[in-house]
Amino acid sequence: MKKVYLDYSATTPVKKEVLQEMLPYFSEDFGNPSSLYAFGQDSKNAVEQARERIAALINADKSEIFFTSSGTEADNWAVFGVADAMDAKGRHIITTKIEHHAMLHSCEFLEKHGYKVTYLDVGNDGIVDPVSLENAITDGTVLISVMFMNNEVGSLQPIKQLCEIARKYKIAFHTDAVQALGNTAIDVKDLGVDLMSVSAHKIYGPKGIGALYIKKGAKISNFMHGGAQEGKRRAGTENLAGIVGFGKAAEIAKNNLGVHIKQVTGQRNYFIDQVLSKIPDVILNGNRELRHPGNANFTFKYIEGEALLLHLDMRGISVSTGSACSSASLVPSHVLSAMNIPVELIHGSLRFTVGDFTTKDDLDYVVEELAGIVARLREISSVSKEKGW
Amino acid sequence: MKKVYLDYSATTPVKKEVLQEMLPYFSEDFGNPSSLYAFGQDSKNAVEQARERIAALINADKSEIFFTSSGTEADNWAVFGVADAMDAKGRHIITTKIEHHAMLHSCEFLEKHGYKVTYLDVGNDGIVDPVSLENAITDGTVLISVMFMNNEVGSLQPIKQLCEIARKYKIAFHTDAVQALGNTAIDVKDLGVDLMSVSAHKIYGPKGIGALYIKKGAKISNFMHGGAQEGKRRAGTENLAGIVGFGKAAEIAKNNLGVHIKQVTGQRNYFIDQVLSKIPDVILNGNRELRHPGNANFTFKYIEGEALLLHLDMRGISVSTGSACSSASLVPSHVLSAMNIPVELIHGSLRFTVGDFTTKDDLDYVVEELAGIVARLREISSVSKEKGW
Repeated sequence: MKKVYLDYSATTPVKKEVLQEMLPYFSEDFGNPSSLYAFGQDSKNAVEQARERIAALINADKSEIFFTSSGTEADNWAVFGVADAMDAKGRHIITTKIEHHAMLHSCEFLEKHGYKVTYLDVGNDGIVDPVSLENAITDGTVLISVMFMNNEVGSLQPIKQLCEIARKYKIAFHTDAVQALGNTAIDVKDLGVDLMSVSAHKIYGPKGIGALYIKKGAKISNFMHGGAQEGKRRAGTENLAGIVGFGKAAEIAKNNLGVHIKQVTGQRNYFIDQVLSKIPDVILNGNRELRHPGNANFTFKYIEGEALLLHLDMRGISVSTGSACSSASLVPSHVLSAMNIPVELIHGSLRFTVGDFTTKDDLDYVVEELAGIVARLREISSVSKEKGW
Repeated sequence: MKKVYLDYSATTPVKKEVLQEMLPYFSEDFGNPSSLYAFGQDSKNAVEQARERIAALINADKSEIFFTSSGTEADNWAVFGVADAMDAKGRHIITTKIEHHAMLHSCEFLEKHGYKVTYLDVGNDGIVDPVSLENAITDGTVLISVMFMNNEVGSLQPIKQLCEIARKYKIAFHTDAVQALGNTAIDVKDLGVDLMSVSAHKIYGPKGIGALYIKKGAKISNFMHGGAQEGKRRAGTENLAGIVGFGKAAEIAKNNLGVHIKQVTGQRNYFIDQVLSKIPDVILNGNRELRHPGNANFTFKYIEGEALLLHLDMRGISVSTGSACSSASLVPSHVLSAMNIPVELIHGSLRFTVGDFTTKDDLDYVVEELAGIVARLREISSVSKEKGW
């Protein structure tokens, strides 16, 4: 059976060149980068080269990149670190209703501990209105966090404009750029962000390694306490091979950025056009232009997305109902809810994300299978209704 | 030049069989374990197999193993998680003066936030007196944390006895078993611990993956907030290849435990005997019997450990002044200080840790080089003193 992976926003395969570069660091050049001897210094140099490559991808200084174990840890660090460091100023955080759970659940934890959090609405296209941000600011606001590109519908936020508002009120601005990294040009200096979360496994690097960009001078307490790693700001023995892999993946992402975006956008657009033209009663969720290049999120009316997902799976096609992190739950997507999509339509939604290894042949296969499955599921659904099941 | 690695307590090389088992999970079987489709379920199964293998090594139930990014994260989780969950009962924690910085700095952070922490003394052998633990308990004590085997001097604590005291007063007991795992038989049920931190890279698994054992029913809040991974208790996309590697390393550690301990202890004892008989004015720090099988920590009188380390490094020998996590600092070891070793002797201390790939030939080479370097450094040092430098 043909296998088609269309869930690149959940995770990506590690590219061969990336794995190749990681390999020596497991069993041969395995020295602890925090050791004083030469063998440890070789590891340290590998870590610093990776740091430089990641910095180069977002136009940061290498001293502003701090490795974490994931985008989730970077988000947790941003929220808890700023909340702690700015506690004397106030206890109000502004974020949006469509953030990743790493942000939302961190904020909810703080709410249980005396913090106030404002969750901004988004429009039907999944985009935040900058005016609503400015209106939400209070004297006690210490952090604004808005996701760069949404993981479910791919919506791209006006980060630079939002940052300008944050700067005007001297409030720290964080963005979760896990989906955006490698999928749009990012220049932290031009944007003016103070903190930015990124992750390797969405850009063809390994799982288990992420980073937090911390602008020089930004006030943030430590989140992971212990040894003196990462300039005494993030403890724990360095994930040497993971860091090296992240660095290589970032280098490839930088060198191929234009080609990657053009290719993936082209395929995604082809896919959207095919689905909308060949299958009736389908809605594309989110803004058609201002979105992640690989993201296509559809509502298939009159059917359950989960049933559709499982039928596609039986035909070797891997797609997602939204965030993999909460895929086992039956709660309707908080992102689609925030976009005012009615609950019955949310249940018929599915996310398809294309990537570097997707071919036109893959997409044609998926469209064909999808059309057939959708038709059959609707038939069953209508028969069930007629018979009052 | 001959290369001899005697810093296995800092980190270990990934064993070939471990790396072999990890490899498919980078670029081929890379599916997100939290996905609903079959491709993700294959990953999920690999994660669950690893969880079983780690549980088997410590006689836990697999549902009690929660993956983290490191031993450091596991320690942070234990401290912050119990402190938060038990906040209504009290704000007092008991630990020891010789804990890893992951514990000490987490406790210091809590002290800045209204918690009281008692740091127990240890004897000259680096071992805690159970009576001192019982005396330190107050009505507000919510957590007791004592390291299983110390990372610097290897001292083995009477965990079972300490646990019994904790149970008597119904206080949660945590142990950092990062150095102990794979180096002594561990049975969490027999010991009675509630929480235990472990890490892969000390047992020939990869860096960047650890776990926290949480006894069924133990009260602990989440530390890493976000997605629903790890039974909704530890968010972040699973470090799939790292987890698989940890599992394989645990399986090997379990199967070879007796042989490994016997072999490493034999070599370590041989090394200690050689050093003490061939080099004058050397003290073995810590208890000779109740210690990590691979650990030899010496004080070489009249010289600086750091100078010795660098001279050994020039001869291809990798050793440590203590914890790699703080090796760049000049602060005298908090562990040796707690053992009442005078500051001038602490500065002459060095840790040698042997492991599975150490040979007798390696040790003979190190003893020979060590004897020569120590003699030369002492000569320089005595000339300096005479001339009043």
